[in-house]
Amino acid sequence: MVLQHATWPDVEAYLQRSRGVVIPLGSTEQHGPTGLIGTDSITAEAVARGIGELAGALVGPTLSLGPAQFNLAFPGTVCLRPTTLIQVIIDYVQSLARGGFRHFYFLNGHGGNIAPAWCAIQELHAERSLGRDGAVALQFRLRSWWDLSEVNDMRQRLYGAGEGMHATPSEIAITQHLLPDLRRSDMLAAPPALSPEFIKFHAGDNHLDAQAHRAQFPDGRVGSFSGLARPEHGQALLAAAAAAAARDYAAFLAGEPA
Amino acid sequence: MVLQHATWPDVEAYLQRSRGVVIPLGSTEQHGPTGLIGTDSITAEAVARGIGELAGALVGPTLSLGPAQFNLAFPGTVCLRPTTLIQVIIDYVQSLARGGFRHFYFLNGHGGNIAPAWCAIQELHAERSLGRDGAVALQFRLRSWWDLSEVNDMRQRLYGAGEGMHATPSEIAITQHLLPDLRRSDMLAAPPALSPEFIKFHAGDNHLDAQAHRAQFPDGRVGSFSGLARPEHGQALLAAAAAAAARDYAAFLAGEPA
Amino acid sequence: MVLQHATWPDVEAYLQRSRGVVIPLGSTEQHGPTGLIGTDSITAEAVARGIGELAGALVGPTLSLGPAQFNLAFPGTVCLRPTTLIQVIIDYVQSLARGGFRHFYFLNGHGGNIAPAWCAIQELHAERSLGRDGAVALQFRLRSWWDLSEVNDMRQRLYGAGEGMHATPSEIAITQHLLPDLRRSDMLAAPPALSPEFIKFHAGDNHLDAQAHRAQFPDGRVGSFSGLARPEHGQALLAAAAAAAARDYAAFLAGEPA
Amino acid sequence: MVLQHATWPDVEAYLQRSRGVVIPLGSTEQHGPTGLIGTDSITAEAVARGIGELAGALVGPTLSLGPAQFNLAFPGTVCLRPTTLIQVIIDYVQSLARGGFRHFYFLNGHGGNIAPAWCAIQELHAERSLGRDGAVALQFRLRSWWDLSEVNDMRQRLYGAGEGMHATPSEIAITQHLLPDLRRSDMLAAPPALSPEFIKFHAGDNHLDAQAHRAQFPDGRVGSFSGLARPEHGQALLAAAAAAAARDYAAFLAGEPA
Amino acid sequence: MVLQHATWPDVEAYLQRSRGVVIPLGSTEQHGPTGLIGTDSITAEAVARGIGELAGALVGPTLSLGPAQFNLAFPGTVCLRPTTLIQVIIDYVQSLARGGFRHFYFLNGHGGNIAPAWCAIQELHAERSLGRDGAVALQFRLRSWWDLSEVNDMRQRLYGAGEGMHATPSEIAITQHLLPDLRRSDMLAAPPALSPEFIKFHAGDNHLDAQAHRAQFPDGRVGSFSGLARPEHGQALLAAAAAAAARDYAAFLAGEPA
Amino acid sequence: MVLQHATWPDVEAYLQRSRGVVIPLGSTEQHGPTGLIGTDSITAEAVARGIGELAGALVGPTLSLGPAQFNLAFPGTVCLRPTTLIQVIIDYVQSLARGGFRHFYFLNGHGGNIAPAWCAIQELHAERSLGRDGAVALQFRLRSWWDLSEVNDMRQRLYGAGEGMHATPSEIAITQHLLPDLRRSDMLAAPPALSPEFIKFHAGDNHLDAQAHRAQFPDGRVGSFSGLARPEHGQALLAAAAAAAARDYAAFLAGEPA
Repeated sequence: MVLQHATWPDVEAYLQRSRGVVIPLGSTEQHGPTGLIGTDSITAEAVARGIGELAGALVGPTLSLGPAQFNLAFPGTVCLRPTTLIQVIIDYVQSLARGGFRHFYFLNGHGGNIAPAWCAIQELHAERSLGRDGAVALQFRLRSWWDLSEVNDMRQRLYGAGEGMHATPSEIAITQHLLPDLRRSDMLAAPPALSPEFIKFHAGDNHLDAQAHRAQFPDGRVGSFSGLARPEHGQALLAAAAAAAARDYAAFLAGEPA
Repeated sequence: MVLQHATWPDVEAYLQRSRGVVIPLGSTEQHGPTGLIGTDSITAEAVARGIGELAGALVGPTLSLGPAQFNLAFPGTVCLRPTTLIQVIIDYVQSLARGGFRHFYFLNGHGGNIAPAWCAIQELHAERSLGRDGAVALQFRLRSWWDLSEVNDMRQRLYGAGEGMHATPSEIAITQHLLPDLRRSDMLAAPPALSPEFIKFHAGDNHLDAQAHRAQFPDGRVGSFSGLARPEHGQALLAAAAAAAARDYAAFLAGEPA
Repeated sequence: MVLQHATWPDVEAYLQRSRGVVIPLGSTEQHGPTGLIGTDSITAEAVARGIGELAGALVGPTLSLGPAQFNLAFPGTVCLRPTTLIQVIIDYVQSLARGGFRHFYFLNGHGGNIAPAWCAIQELHAERSLGRDGAVALQFRLRSWWDLSEVNDMRQRLYGAGEGMHATPSEIAITQHLLPDLRRSDMLAAPPALSPEFIKFHAGDNHLDAQAHRAQFPDGRVGSFSGLARPEHGQALLAAAAAAAARDYAAFLAGEPA
Repeated sequence: MVLQHATWPDVEAYLQRSRGVVIPLGSTEQHGPTGLIGTDSITAEAVARGIGELAGALVGPTLSLGPAQFNLAFPGTVCLRPTTLIQVIIDYVQSLARGGFRHFYFLNGHGGNIAPAWCAIQELHAERSLGRDGAVALQFRLRSWWDLSEVNDMRQRLYGAGEGMHATPSEIAITQHLLPDLRRSDMLAAPPALSPEFIKFHAGDNHLDAQAHRAQFPDGRVGSFSGLARPEHGQALLAAAAAAAARDYAAFLAGEPA
Repeated sequence: MVLQHATWPDVEAYLQRSRGVVIPLGSTEQHGPTGLIGTDSITAEAVARGIGELAGALVGPTLSLGPAQFNLAFPGTVCLRPTTLIQVIIDYVQSLARGGFRHFYFLNGHGGNIAPAWCAIQELHAERSLGRDGAVALQFRLRSWWDLSEVNDMRQRLYGAGEGMHATPSEIAITQHLLPDLRRSDMLAAPPALSPEFIKFHAGDNHLDAQAHRAQFPDGRVGSFSGLARPEHGQALLAAAAAAAARDYAAFLAGEPA
Repeated sequence: MVLQHATWPDVEAYLQRSRGVVIPLGSTEQHGPTGLIGTDSITAEAVARGIGELAGALVGPTLSLGPAQFNLAFPGTVCLRPTTLIQVIIDYVQSLARGGFRHFYFLNGHGGNIAPAWCAIQELHAERSLGRDGAVALQFRLRSWWDLSEVNDMRQRLYGAGEGMHATPSEIAITQHLLPDLRRSDMLAAPPALSPEFIKFHAGDNHLDAQAHRAQFPDGRVGSFSGLARPEHGQALLAAAAAAAARDYAAFLAGEPA
């Protein structure tokens, strides 16, 4: 069930059977010369809706803006300050908690959202930990779709080192599958490969300022060989992600460890 | 052109011919027993994309959360604090201004967004007015689609006093047109009519707290006879809104008064 | 009763018979070559005190600073950021609510205060709507004195299109009545008339940045033919405003719709 | 010159001869059973206007709300959070600095304003100290009128230990002089005397929470024998304060040490 | 007992016998050519630990950063914005209050901390004064070690006017005693003496912006003849400070006036 | 060189040869029945000072408070809100950048600091990315000492699954080595082992609210068999951490990838 497509009596009925909700986290930022600026939002929303279908979960509206200061030298990028996103997530969660929700599952499509989401979650818990009356016990899980082991394996199998970190063929493939009319021709050469150390250290979009970032990655791709993307890969990746995330969501609701 | 569906070279090319962008403002809140929770976002986005098509404008991602504390007693409602929305709009505008945009047209679908948007605009202007270096001159226009005179006339003609203020047949009709599969049967009686004074005073969603609001409007509709909505109305309303807003946007870019 | 002129036992006694308070909202900003910089505060305070006398209401201290970034290119203008005013209003209301007040009537003298006041009111309601313990039910009404229908009619009758939007003859006339020694000679020509569309769109002081605003309105008047002001007009306008606002306040306390 | 009573051309002319401005800081809080709730604002404004007359200074609008949480158990008290007052002062100063002012003299009437004013001043300096472009060099002086040595001597001579700390006969005497019609009969006994240590430690209104404060000082007076106040004392105190503050202001403008 | 060196069962046991805690407030900023940048933190921590030993008090971690914008033109200085320090203190206190602490004694080593600490204390009290549920009654005392009368007497006796205001021989002497290996040779001439008015007015580090401050005090010392410092002075000063502060702390716990 | 132990001329001289600084990030929170509450700060500071010695780096004061809401049910825990820590880090960095520093190396001792540090870094970069004048290019690296591969290997070798996540034998061993007098006898049984999934998911201290956390981990240890700690392990771990971190710091200064 998609929250935007439901009515309040629908939500009231849903709450009789579940206290969980899936919230997609995206971003609006350059994804290289051929990737869509909305890639992170489009992919996160698609996986989240997959959870909705497979697990009967309510899916809230996608937060389509995230921290992306490093991409601001590429026009069209929108960057939410981390502290702004923290407040947005707090408001989002407190509103739904007011209505009865208790389990919040963030399906994430943008590395830069991870740290602010963590901060928001800890701020939300702190309300209760500090003894504020009316602060109910909440549970959170944050999952980036590419991090699910089935998806990660498939990404490595399909693209190996060409997967890279930004404007990855896997995320582009999913958008090609979902929006075939928007697929761009991509004859770009593979960008320089990234070292495993670089990938580990820059996880969560731990990048430099915008001027330095564009100087370092002139076409916006961070080690990703975007031209490898194929819509059929996207279909498979999306199916795998939705299935794995739906299992993960069910385990979350059941109180099983992540 | 939809920003999420563009690439950064697309935006770079667009900026050669225009410095304008359309930003849809929505909300995620109850719209009565038969209206969709996402009504405000769905309608604002559809009108904004109409501007995009008719005026060749770039359309940014919809801000789908807005202030709606008065609806929090209806589950499924999400409320952004006004101060949070102010900061979101500031970040959104400053990001695009960094890339070269100068004319920001907010196409609004939720009364509660008007005051925070005004505040954000004034905060953005203040940066320049206070002499901060690097603060460029920006222009803003905020337009609620139902306020365009062609649309307003049509609303009155179609529904008269039944239009009301929330969960209006006009907004529901647009969603019926756009999402026919989600149309709900609506046999609800007309709610009590609102006085003109009430409508004037509560413009901009100037409502009470959630408990009081639900007590006052038990099914969530504020004077709106939702059952009057028809998809064919929605089609006409949307077409009228898009055409009028596209003219308004063109006048805005041309420096003509609102 | 003026709060500043009362003692705490006076207020304790007042609370036995009423839970209402009137709060004047002003501004400190240029009002053209002959209008006083304090015009908005002076007029709002005078109308509010008129309510106090006619309706036996407690009148709190005037908030004499408001958002006015568009006037910062005229020296002597003071601009509170909208987010600052929001916080000031929240603190003001929460303090009085702590003492037992429940009905807050803002008598406004500056268009730029409207949006931040709306935001503050919604933030205050949100405390209760989100279930914070101890958040009592509060009621608010915001009324700009020129918007009261009797006053509006009189303004149109006296000045027609010459009333304009800023440094209006009506507000200047009230200050001439109240502070006759400060009356300035005004031989200024009428400024260019504003279109009805301009007036509608710029309601609430929806203006540009300070540099652009001064370039557009070089002497600070926005369509207002200030030289039409006469002290006897001011006397009549103030009397009409106080009477109408006192009725409006009484209706507010009685729970009647605005 | 009173800013509210001036026009922008007046201010433009003033800036040709001076870059200084006097800003009165007051409060709105209980002052015992017979003192006015506005005492701190009334006295600060009167002294500030005295400076205006004696030193030809521009006097801005009084900030009539200050931190006073300790008095919230007495109805009618309004408390601005310290962080709110910090932001108000920052906005106030930056607006006038934009117009050309450089010397800001705060004439203070409320101990609780001292710490937030210090914070605001340091935040304002920090803009320049951190190298923000456009941050001009500003100078500040904060002076509480009772702290001027001539005034302090007179207070001790008139009232000795009866002066106390809150609802002091000296501040009440000034209001009796300024607003004779509002003078209350005061037959209250002297409250328990305060130790010098208490006075030193609680300078700057370093008090407990509201419940504890009212329990400790049941009628709101903190060691002050309010009944000693006489209007003729007030006249003399005000004259002394204005004269001393005007000299202090002149020295401030001249760059002499405080 | 030092909090960092305790375990949680230790703290649980301590709370059976006391609800008090000592929190040292320091700073990290230049202290002239021969004084250590950490002087304020080192001295405050040493006095606080002296209280811990003499009075059996728990001593929390030192807040080693404070507002010091005026010293930013001397490299190595770190400045916390006053509003940041306010929030840090609020978080620190609320955390310990959650665990059961009720008496908070700030042992201060930096004038610039006084105003923000006052603001934080008032913000903390305001939670309870405004009726927030769960806000318990808290008590605070803020004491700068040099202000204790025994210490102040000794400072005057040892150094007279040479004590000055910043990079004082007394604070340097304490660091010489504590960290003898770090003692620097100091053959600097005495800086110009400060007037008593200057000292009174600039108490609490009421200084100008960094550029102006360095121009005024080129080597960073503010009236302090640092070369007078001797480690044996430091030993005596520290012993006196610890003894006096321990008595002050005991009186605070016993509810005696400051 | 330790910043607190240096003078400003020392720092001025240092800046001639290096623009780098090491900032230790700690926490003050329970570490099980036998671990010190200051464990995270003590260990981070010790490793940072090791870098200072081995790489000739300047080491700033330790930030000894971090986000730790999940531990608030254990008394003695201090929790900084994530948004507070973000602001502290911003102030810290901007102060040192004002003096000429450009390379900031955070040596981290607490998982809960990682997300807020990331946010602070991105906020700092955003100043420059958004084109704020005066915002210089800065570089950051954040390294948790246990994450250095040499240290991680040693931890696994020494303790295997007994290492766990909180109150780890490795961190306790380092404090035993540094503060032998504070070593506690520890006869506690091994807590239940954590699954690899749990460890991965809860990295960065991604824990529940305080009540739930204490219910889940009643003695405060999260999977860590604290009794395995030995001071000689601590000595080896510290030496390995300092050596590896010094190499990492040198590579950072040299512009080598992480």
